[in-house]
Amino acid sequence: MNSANDVNGERDVNQEHKAKMVRINEAADRKLAKATIEKGLVIVHTGAGKGKSTAAFGMAIRALGQGMKVGIVQFIKGAIPTGEAAFFAKLDLPVEMHTLGEGFTWKTQDRERDIATAEKGWQKAVELMRDPSFDMVILDELNIATKYDYVSITRVIEELKQKRQMLHVVLTGRNASPELIEIADLVSEMKVIKHPYGHGVKPQRGVEF
Amino acid sequence: MNSANDVNGERDVNQEHKAKMVRINEAADRKLAKATIEKGLVIVHTGAGKGKSTAAFGMAIRALGQGMKVGIVQFIKGAIPTGEAAFFAKLDLPVEMHTLGEGFTWKTQDRERDIATAEKGWQKAVELMRDPSFDMVILDELNIATKYDYVSITRVIEELKQKRQMLHVVLTGRNASPELIEIADLVSEMKVIKHPYGHGVKPQRGVEF
Repeated sequence: MNSANDVNGERDVNQEHKAKMVRINEAADRKLAKATIEKGLVIVHTGAGKGKSTAAFGMAIRALGQGMKVGIVQFIKGAIPTGEAAFFAKLDLPVEMHTLGEGFTWKTQDRERDIATAEKGWQKAVELMRDPSFDMVILDELNIATKYDYVSITRVIEELKQKRQMLHVVLTGRNASPELIEIADLVSEMKVIKHPYGHGVKPQRGVEF
Repeated sequence: MNSANDVNGERDVNQEHKAKMVRINEAADRKLAKATIEKGLVIVHTGAGKGKSTAAFGMAIRALGQGMKVGIVQFIKGAIPTGEAAFFAKLDLPVEMHTLGEGFTWKTQDRERDIATAEKGWQKAVELMRDPSFDMVILDELNIATKYDYVSITRVIEELKQKRQMLHVVLTGRNASPELIEIADLVSEMKVIKHPYGHGVKPQRGVEF
């Protein structure tokens, strides 16, 4: 092809790159043109890797930056102070954070208490999701509470099915239930490729908490 | 086992739960006791799924909440205004964000310009990583720039190898190079399980940008 040759008849890598990028761009534009639905999304971050809650907090930042109001309920965490809690507490932002967990189930070692704690979290979650002032609600580690049946997945699915059309709901935690994945719009699985914990590295402040 | 029976001789699920949690907790404590190294981490978020950059921004929040100073260089993004950029711009926080990208390579369609843009980003990245006032530096989408060889992976690895001991560096983008994964402390792969884009849903404000 002539346009891909330079004056010396050699292949012009820049020209070739351009031709390829034009094709990719056209395909991307066609795909985008077909995507016309506006809706609040049900987003799930699951898997054993790092980044599930962290990406939910990143999503809170993005939404806040777009002038939205964000609600957060933490179902498991709550035993140790975290950077994210400190961050949201010290700034005057349209974000409501409810840290209602008491730590991992193997720390509390009390199933009835875990159930009562999870129920309190779920009541708060329902309250925020039904409050029309919120644009995004993050239910951090709810997947763990439903996995242990501390909150029934049936109640969660019912509530999500009747949520306001434009409300975004982000649910995090390992072992997301198949019923949840079924009704979700966006599901990412965070996989562990490498973890420092196994190599003798302490959980680092500002990274792990 | 007696302690797992209730007064009626029936299995007590709560007691059994407690015994199991005590065992898990002991294992967790043993693992934690062995993790004693303090170090700045090289963290990689890769894969085709959503959440790579988002989790990096979440990590920025966590670090900021812990009183750390954060630097961010965006290598590809920059063509459209994002919620995260608006967020960091409007608050007085110890964060420096340099959005030096010009959009995806198929938008610019100009390889030499992409290379020059990536080089500018890399210069800024080196400057931030060598500045001792930063505790965490996020190199957003650098993996894409190295994948296309806009920035050579050899230079990136060399710079990471000589970084300050306590500096955390977070690198995001698909197709992280094997050399980078090799020297990283923490690698998460974000996998697509479900994406709304394929179902006619428009990229939503506050979620996608």
